[in-house]
Amino acid sequence: MNCLSPSLLASDFARLGEQVVLLDEAGAQYVHIDVMDGNFVPSISMGLPVIKSIRPCSDRIFDVHLMIEEPVRYIDDFVDAGADLITVHTEACGHLDRTIEAIKETGVLAGAALNPATPLSVLDYILPKLDMVLLMSVNPGFGGQKYIPYTTEKIRDLKKKIDRSGQQIDIEVDGGVNLNNVREIMDAGANIIVAGTAVFKGDIRRNVESFLKIMEQ
Amino acid sequence: MNCLSPSLLASDFARLGEQVVLLDEAGAQYVHIDVMDGNFVPSISMGLPVIKSIRPCSDRIFDVHLMIEEPVRYIDDFVDAGADLITVHTEACGHLDRTIEAIKETGVLAGAALNPATPLSVLDYILPKLDMVLLMSVNPGFGGQKYIPYTTEKIRDLKKKIDRSGQQIDIEVDGGVNLNNVREIMDAGANIIVAGTAVFKGDIRRNVESFLKIMEQ
Amino acid sequence: MNCLSPSLLASDFARLGEQVVLLDEAGAQYVHIDVMDGNFVPSISMGLPVIKSIRPCSDRIFDVHLMIEEPVRYIDDFVDAGADLITVHTEACGHLDRTIEAIKETGVLAGAALNPATPLSVLDYILPKLDMVLLMSVNPGFGGQKYIPYTTEKIRDLKKKIDRSGQQIDIEVDGGVNLNNVREIMDAGANIIVAGTAVFKGDIRRNVESFLKIMEQ
Amino acid sequence: MNCLSPSLLASDFARLGEQVVLLDEAGAQYVHIDVMDGNFVPSISMGLPVIKSIRPCSDRIFDVHLMIEEPVRYIDDFVDAGADLITVHTEACGHLDRTIEAIKETGVLAGAALNPATPLSVLDYILPKLDMVLLMSVNPGFGGQKYIPYTTEKIRDLKKKIDRSGQQIDIEVDGGVNLNNVREIMDAGANIIVAGTAVFKGDIRRNVESFLKIMEQ
Amino acid sequence: MNCLSPSLLASDFARLGEQVVLLDEAGAQYVHIDVMDGNFVPSISMGLPVIKSIRPCSDRIFDVHLMIEEPVRYIDDFVDAGADLITVHTEACGHLDRTIEAIKETGVLAGAALNPATPLSVLDYILPKLDMVLLMSVNPGFGGQKYIPYTTEKIRDLKKKIDRSGQQIDIEVDGGVNLNNVREIMDAGANIIVAGTAVFKGDIRRNVESFLKIMEQ
Amino acid sequence: MNCLSPSLLASDFARLGEQVVLLDEAGAQYVHIDVMDGNFVPSISMGLPVIKSIRPCSDRIFDVHLMIEEPVRYIDDFVDAGADLITVHTEACGHLDRTIEAIKETGVLAGAALNPATPLSVLDYILPKLDMVLLMSVNPGFGGQKYIPYTTEKIRDLKKKIDRSGQQIDIEVDGGVNLNNVREIMDAGANIIVAGTAVFKGDIRRNVESFLKIMEQ
Repeated sequence: MNCLSPSLLASDFARLGEQVVLLDEAGAQYVHIDVMDGNFVPSISMGLPVIKSIRPCSDRIFDVHLMIEEPVRYIDDFVDAGADLITVHTEACGHLDRTIEAIKETGVLAGAALNPATPLSVLDYILPKLDMVLLMSVNPGFGGQKYIPYTTEKIRDLKKKIDRSGQQIDIEVDGGVNLNNVREIMDAGANIIVAGTAVFKGDIRRNVESFLKIMEQ
Repeated sequence: MNCLSPSLLASDFARLGEQVVLLDEAGAQYVHIDVMDGNFVPSISMGLPVIKSIRPCSDRIFDVHLMIEEPVRYIDDFVDAGADLITVHTEACGHLDRTIEAIKETGVLAGAALNPATPLSVLDYILPKLDMVLLMSVNPGFGGQKYIPYTTEKIRDLKKKIDRSGQQIDIEVDGGVNLNNVREIMDAGANIIVAGTAVFKGDIRRNVESFLKIMEQ
Repeated sequence: MNCLSPSLLASDFARLGEQVVLLDEAGAQYVHIDVMDGNFVPSISMGLPVIKSIRPCSDRIFDVHLMIEEPVRYIDDFVDAGADLITVHTEACGHLDRTIEAIKETGVLAGAALNPATPLSVLDYILPKLDMVLLMSVNPGFGGQKYIPYTTEKIRDLKKKIDRSGQQIDIEVDGGVNLNNVREIMDAGANIIVAGTAVFKGDIRRNVESFLKIMEQ
Repeated sequence: MNCLSPSLLASDFARLGEQVVLLDEAGAQYVHIDVMDGNFVPSISMGLPVIKSIRPCSDRIFDVHLMIEEPVRYIDDFVDAGADLITVHTEACGHLDRTIEAIKETGVLAGAALNPATPLSVLDYILPKLDMVLLMSVNPGFGGQKYIPYTTEKIRDLKKKIDRSGQQIDIEVDGGVNLNNVREIMDAGANIIVAGTAVFKGDIRRNVESFLKIMEQ
Repeated sequence: MNCLSPSLLASDFARLGEQVVLLDEAGAQYVHIDVMDGNFVPSISMGLPVIKSIRPCSDRIFDVHLMIEEPVRYIDDFVDAGADLITVHTEACGHLDRTIEAIKETGVLAGAALNPATPLSVLDYILPKLDMVLLMSVNPGFGGQKYIPYTTEKIRDLKKKIDRSGQQIDIEVDGGVNLNNVREIMDAGANIIVAGTAVFKGDIRRNVESFLKIMEQ
Repeated sequence: MNCLSPSLLASDFARLGEQVVLLDEAGAQYVHIDVMDGNFVPSISMGLPVIKSIRPCSDRIFDVHLMIEEPVRYIDDFVDAGADLITVHTEACGHLDRTIEAIKETGVLAGAALNPATPLSVLDYILPKLDMVLLMSVNPGFGGQKYIPYTTEKIRDLKKKIDRSGQQIDIEVDGGVNLNNVREIMDAGANIIVAGTAVFKGDIRRNVESFLKIMEQ
């Protein structure tokens, strides 16, 4: 299923609950929550108390993207805070299988994220255990960047790899996605789309609807 | 001057702007913002975009407490986001003088924080450069802890040390402070009081007013 | 040659010498020694003085599995303590070729270990220099875990890769191996088998003999 | 009370249970267990499974000296393994009060260790919470070193500091202690004595008795 | 184009300007500058002020090889010091695409270096963005080592990978190259050759000319 | 004895041998060599091959100031390269006594350096083992900074502490020293003076002589 996952990084944190409700009502299926620790990525964004506070505002999938070192330390905390899906970076995990297992044991969905230059070979054996692969199409840590063109080929390669595995695994793409390139990205194989400024700049409801319309084609 | 600095860690992040306005109107002079990176402390709380979003809600002192490793890397970012006062942990700075200088060069106020067991000797030479010393009266990283009793003696020792230096330096105390112990803490020498659950649990306006009443005696 | 390498992690350390003698007499060709540092893996097990003390108890191959960060720092120490074969984790070595060279220069055998999710591509160029590859079939750091099923395919892929290289390189498998799955694991290509609780729980001599009987088929 | 704490680092690990029984019968009140992680100190010694195996051999105080980075991660594991007293290095703890609290919450005794050059000021506020202070009289990580002479003055200074606090806190000294210098060390204020080679070289029973005789004077 | 890049690591730093002039006049097209930080590699060599001082001595390509952790922190500094080409190690970059982008944004050429055992798969997606790939043919950090034979196959594999990409990307080889093996290395696909002792031992001018003669065949 | 230690950081590395000879002839008793690793301090300067190359140029004291993490790893290398005096930062040593011992065992002189804000209490027990204490009067890692005024009081405090110890220990001051403030610094108790730009800007010989003239008063 195709899903839109608006990134709260671009939202107004003064009235976050209201914005989450708006996204939900406009039809966005996921809420993308970018957690940055200032070590794995060069910025510090939001964390546990923020998620806890907005959990009552919507039943949509809370799609928590952990851009943090050794996320295995915080899996239980983010599940307690309200995550439905936890994605960890392959580059930040010394023990990737153990980290994925730790997520799955809590009952939530498990994703693995790859930085732009990270090769797909890191998924050679762990792929069938995953619910989702997140391909970064910009370098994590900064908002408002441009989509890196070589990602499209990487999505295609990943799609083939997943098809060969015979599993149902979602492909999420995060970074520089907008109304102009989302079709190309989905045609390459992605089915979950993260969008930040493209959703929150201007009329949020209309932006969500425009994305969903293209995505449903 | 005696000031109350309610800690947003205990606030409702779904309607943060509203809560900041409420604190401001109730008379709290500071807004305490606990930034945790999951490395210096075992939790991840909030960061740059949260501060940016609430900056327009109040002109009160944004008192940013960086519980992060090597904060010197993020001084400019937090000033840009809206900090008026930046406090760094002495335990997290390889080069404390450089970090304090980096804060002061931006024009905002500079504070140094000490974990409960950290001796005051770490301030022997840097003290006169500081606008504030923050004494942790609980172990940083968790909310809702009890005030560590030996902190009271530490406040007294610090007050003497500051008096000997001949400078005007604020003493802030953070952790387990409530309406029952705030008087004792101020009598020991503290003049800026951080309070989390004691402010946000129940009627925020009334809690702020109760604190201010005791603090003004 | 097929060899059994009972893991001391499951032994009784109060009478370790006696147990090593028992393993030797029962016919186990290797003694598997799991060194954990509490940093690369989340446990701390045993180290240099333990190996030194039991070295006089047996002439069997002391198969030292270093689950430690940057093992290159401790190669000489473990050789001095009595190692015959040293295996390092590819994930723990910044400079894998240098680490393998450091082992070989001492005259002992050199192995490289891969965590469950680690792709075989990390061996693309270093493979011909190795005496052994250790595939982890559980996440290192804990005893008594279940064999991860996807390891069997990985053993097969590695066996093919080794055959293509034209070298004689042993394949060791470590984690969750017992009398029920050892045949499948060897059929996939493994020839050195690590077993912990499956050897030490109950009658050690009989357990070793049961393993060897299956392994010799 | 004066106690001898023979260090297992110098024992024969092939028959460790037997040696622990011997120490117990000879009258040693503590068993000193040096855990080294290869990161905080440049050696790797022993860990959890070793302690578990020898716990049934004696009811004496298992005095576990953690020479490891951020010991707060392993407190529960060492208590489960059988520790009665856990000592952590002040240099290895980012949050010393939290680490000591974590030990005390489990119900075992809590100690803080100082490297030779570490000043006593690190104890300024945490001292009254401690059951014991361990002063290193050699650099941790190596056996068989000579006692550093300046430690004697440091013991005296610590004794005065403890007396001023009005608490009952043990002083343990570790490194290069033998029958010739133990009297001087106790006269300076130490009451728990660690001895390795001086106990295990030669006749263990006789060595323990010789130490106890001098220590009881 | 084929180019020689003599490594200053083997030069006489007492008269470095003079030696750089000599290399330039003898026809070497590049100057190879090995920056070692004592953390990524086990040696400390030279840095910013050395490069600044010799920049006026020659207009040749200053080929700066950063053997340092997280080089993204120092890109601007090395460009300011005079680098024309900056090469970073794939093993030292948490965010390789971001690091390469940071180099390219300054306007200088960007290279990626691989340790001997590092697989070419790390280049799967970033390759087309690179101006050069540097293959280490010894373990970085030490001078005077022997060429690792398996590098030749790796050069051939890389050459094929580059040809498939349809881009013009240089291949530099560094370590143990001399007049006897340079031809074989170039035949495998390398076109930029680093040489240290082979250039600086004996008559520098003659050595450079001998290399260039073989390289131009 | 009062000594001048010109810092090569400000020299011309294109003709370093020549400049070292000039310093020697002009009467400077020490040569100050600032080694920066890009981790302990935010710059990378010079290292082993530079020192080796200039060692034959002068018999003066090579005063090697290691601004690097865990310098204990590189003591032997810097002694082999030609150091006569090695100074390590107290903030960079996990085991300060062991590091100082490692220097002394090689036969060269041993110094300990303190960052501006570091309290003198770190020297409480190690002081008598030192040949020199280096007080940083700027934050290490950058040239051309201004002398931090509070250093003068720190020099006085250190001088008293040394006098109380009854030992002969040199006090070196590094950072922002020039002809105008050198007298004040020496009057406070310093006897070894580091100067960079104040020596190398303009006529080196004359600058050295001007310093020596003031220092000999």
